[in-house]
Amino acid sequence: MLKTAIVTMLFGIAAYSSHAQDSKKPAEMTPEMTEQWEPEPQVVTPGTNNAAAPSDAIILFDGKDLSKWKSKNGEGDAAWPVNDGYFTVGKGDISTKQGFRDFQLHLEWSAPEKVEGEGQGRGNSGVFLQDRYEVQILDSHNNRTYSNGQAGSIYKQYPPLVNAMRKPGEWNSYDIIYTAPRFNEDGSLFSEARVTVIHNGVVIQNNAVIRGATEYIGLPKYKAHGNAPISLQDHGNPVRFRNIWIREL
Amino acid sequence: MLKTAIVTMLFGIAAYSSHAQDSKKPAEMTPEMTEQWEPEPQVVTPGTNNAAAPSDAIILFDGKDLSKWKSKNGEGDAAWPVNDGYFTVGKGDISTKQGFRDFQLHLEWSAPEKVEGEGQGRGNSGVFLQDRYEVQILDSHNNRTYSNGQAGSIYKQYPPLVNAMRKPGEWNSYDIIYTAPRFNEDGSLFSEARVTVIHNGVVIQNNAVIRGATEYIGLPKYKAHGNAPISLQDHGNPVRFRNIWIREL
Amino acid sequence: MLKTAIVTMLFGIAAYSSHAQDSKKPAEMTPEMTEQWEPEPQVVTPGTNNAAAPSDAIILFDGKDLSKWKSKNGEGDAAWPVNDGYFTVGKGDISTKQGFRDFQLHLEWSAPEKVEGEGQGRGNSGVFLQDRYEVQILDSHNNRTYSNGQAGSIYKQYPPLVNAMRKPGEWNSYDIIYTAPRFNEDGSLFSEARVTVIHNGVVIQNNAVIRGATEYIGLPKYKAHGNAPISLQDHGNPVRFRNIWIREL
Amino acid sequence: MLKTAIVTMLFGIAAYSSHAQDSKKPAEMTPEMTEQWEPEPQVVTPGTNNAAAPSDAIILFDGKDLSKWKSKNGEGDAAWPVNDGYFTVGKGDISTKQGFRDFQLHLEWSAPEKVEGEGQGRGNSGVFLQDRYEVQILDSHNNRTYSNGQAGSIYKQYPPLVNAMRKPGEWNSYDIIYTAPRFNEDGSLFSEARVTVIHNGVVIQNNAVIRGATEYIGLPKYKAHGNAPISLQDHGNPVRFRNIWIREL
Repeated sequence: MLKTAIVTMLFGIAAYSSHAQDSKKPAEMTPEMTEQWEPEPQVVTPGTNNAAAPSDAIILFDGKDLSKWKSKNGEGDAAWPVNDGYFTVGKGDISTKQGFRDFQLHLEWSAPEKVEGEGQGRGNSGVFLQDRYEVQILDSHNNRTYSNGQAGSIYKQYPPLVNAMRKPGEWNSYDIIYTAPRFNEDGSLFSEARVTVIHNGVVIQNNAVIRGATEYIGLPKYKAHGNAPISLQDHGNPVRFRNIWIREL
Repeated sequence: MLKTAIVTMLFGIAAYSSHAQDSKKPAEMTPEMTEQWEPEPQVVTPGTNNAAAPSDAIILFDGKDLSKWKSKNGEGDAAWPVNDGYFTVGKGDISTKQGFRDFQLHLEWSAPEKVEGEGQGRGNSGVFLQDRYEVQILDSHNNRTYSNGQAGSIYKQYPPLVNAMRKPGEWNSYDIIYTAPRFNEDGSLFSEARVTVIHNGVVIQNNAVIRGATEYIGLPKYKAHGNAPISLQDHGNPVRFRNIWIREL
Repeated sequence: MLKTAIVTMLFGIAAYSSHAQDSKKPAEMTPEMTEQWEPEPQVVTPGTNNAAAPSDAIILFDGKDLSKWKSKNGEGDAAWPVNDGYFTVGKGDISTKQGFRDFQLHLEWSAPEKVEGEGQGRGNSGVFLQDRYEVQILDSHNNRTYSNGQAGSIYKQYPPLVNAMRKPGEWNSYDIIYTAPRFNEDGSLFSEARVTVIHNGVVIQNNAVIRGATEYIGLPKYKAHGNAPISLQDHGNPVRFRNIWIREL
Repeated sequence: MLKTAIVTMLFGIAAYSSHAQDSKKPAEMTPEMTEQWEPEPQVVTPGTNNAAAPSDAIILFDGKDLSKWKSKNGEGDAAWPVNDGYFTVGKGDISTKQGFRDFQLHLEWSAPEKVEGEGQGRGNSGVFLQDRYEVQILDSHNNRTYSNGQAGSIYKQYPPLVNAMRKPGEWNSYDIIYTAPRFNEDGSLFSEARVTVIHNGVVIQNNAVIRGATEYIGLPKYKAHGNAPISLQDHGNPVRFRNIWIREL
């Protein structure tokens, strides 16, 4: 095939010689011309299963301690109780010490096995992307609330596409692919944040365009910011977390 | 908080009475105003693990037979050999009988345990989204080829972000979130296809904008089409497949 | 340059012969390979000046009559008074008889020379793209109102980037480039409408993403629709219009 | 209407009192809640006609001299001949001294009245956005060449939607709305450049996504850059220019 292509090309040149670019003969390419050799993608060793951290991930919680976290307001320690392999929501929100921009985040969480409260009052917490864009955490198993406030919603913005919630006490996973908003130098918004969320293997947000920082009251708005941490919300319910890792994209 | 909001609003009304819309006082909302109750997201039971099909998935291969598939060219049976729990590439490409538009696709594949050939000649196959947009399948473990031709590339368009390949003989998974292109009634392109690919739990394509149908030679182009099947490529290598399911989005 | 390219290619072939696609030598293209000859763009004769209709435009008002328009609600005539070269807002909204999807629209309008009222009460009308997405018309010359309600705003959604308003009685032009929203077959939204507006030669909306049908109260929402007319609003003020033409894109 | 809304709200509060956010009653908004008062758009005085520079434009050529321009390669003067009201292509490309990012650009140009050469050899020049993304200038009146090389094409990328060319010797206008690409800190591309081009009042590029810096040979690629000038090309033909202004967006 290659050989033929070249012959065609030589004929082509003979045929239209001096004013090549004005010919209507389409010029045939060769297979190599659409090969891209550089750069070579970096080798990453995947985890032993798809929930396990790959080799280039930053481990945010490995089951042992909250050393990668701090209290959200201030520089104090993240004082949430850690048990063997998981931690439980305690007093006050917590944030990662490190800030992030675009990323892939894996986290696992469990609504309290003992079912208490209803609606927003049952198993409520939240993961804040860049400290301000909330993916809702809630016990949404047989627990009706507003659709854009249930588990997997972009809180007060988008309901999840479906409700893929496991039972209270069972472990849920969120796999989140996040593109940060970009701002111009004058602080104006250039492009919105976008997020894809996979809940227990089921796509529930598909490249959703985030409208601004999560607001409990009123419409979301953007305000310029740089890299920012992942935060977890204390909403007064003993939601548990485990196996949290992040890859910068 | 609610109470306060209402009081503010009543004061506001008293203050600007008859020509309300010309006031500069911002009107305060209440929390309920950004709740969206309808529709209620459908309940989907996730699989027992994230690779297992959720309750709303169409099972394309459950380990037993190729009854959901046919030969790509024509209506003949998909004549690839099926073993216990997996099938192996045989003669000619195969396609699903059903066509799809936007979807989430899970599939698992394995490069031949016996390593033979090099570059594009080693463990080569491919999954064609809507029968024409190829996500490359290749044994990319210690096997350099052009970057936009290795496993997880959008073939001849985009290299994977990283190389998350497992060893020959081990099972790899692709989780693919795909948005079909849209065409105008006159056949012109309205919007390109977009795809996110997760390889063994690692994001390797992040909402990549597909440039057109995959071409071995020359530049990709779009040509209008409707729903179309998932196809698998016979490139002459005994690549194996298992656990294939799809959810329409 | 061509000659050199070919020589390089021949050398290249000699060098990597039989397993061409595994070479790391970049294959050089020729200039013709990125030429696209077909289709040939259609010839359009532009107007004698940039406000005059080009040869492929549909003339919606040429200064003589409203034969291309009807009353918005029902099939009655558009009963707004026509003078020599312009028409004035009369009783009830009016719509074009023809529906449109994507388009370039030119229209000229003038706020009443006699200044009466204030805020939203002065020289208020509006052009509704596809009968539901309003670009505000208002006398915004020295007339403060809410920013997303002044002339050139996407009403209740986006303020204009700047206020490029001429004085009352003078003619303003809007040049509007509009891409309709697309809907899936089940009525769900696939992509939002987008609009660019040029007011008196000044860009005031730059590919703004419309949030849904214009609402006076509450948040905009999308509801599936097909081609739809251009409508003009009767807001009780004698706004004048002239020179209206549209090109389908 | 306002009054009613408030009454409804008070009833609503009475009805669901303490666990407000779990009610299914939609909360009604008032018109003021979707008003945005701040910031107030800046007042800009439009030109006396739509081709004339508005008050916030930077005048790049006012008919008198090339003081805002320099030779493209180096810091030398722009040595192209200036006549009364226009200038003509001379030796070597020229660039504005100032760099720009996002902008609205107006320029007028004329193909040589004396028709000489054919295809790419007739009336060829070009305007390079940010010094590297070319909108083609060519005498495309009765002069067939490749479609993505004629006047108004994004050179070697997109043909114009239509051919709105005036006759040789007559003045053409380009109104260009340009959004610069954005790059990540590591130099990788975040978002492509986009451009809308209006030729003599006719939309010929509608938010086209630029594929990379213009290449005569081979495929376009992006390479990170900051603000950059507008450049004009010396292709050996006496194309004339006049009335050039730009507004930063």
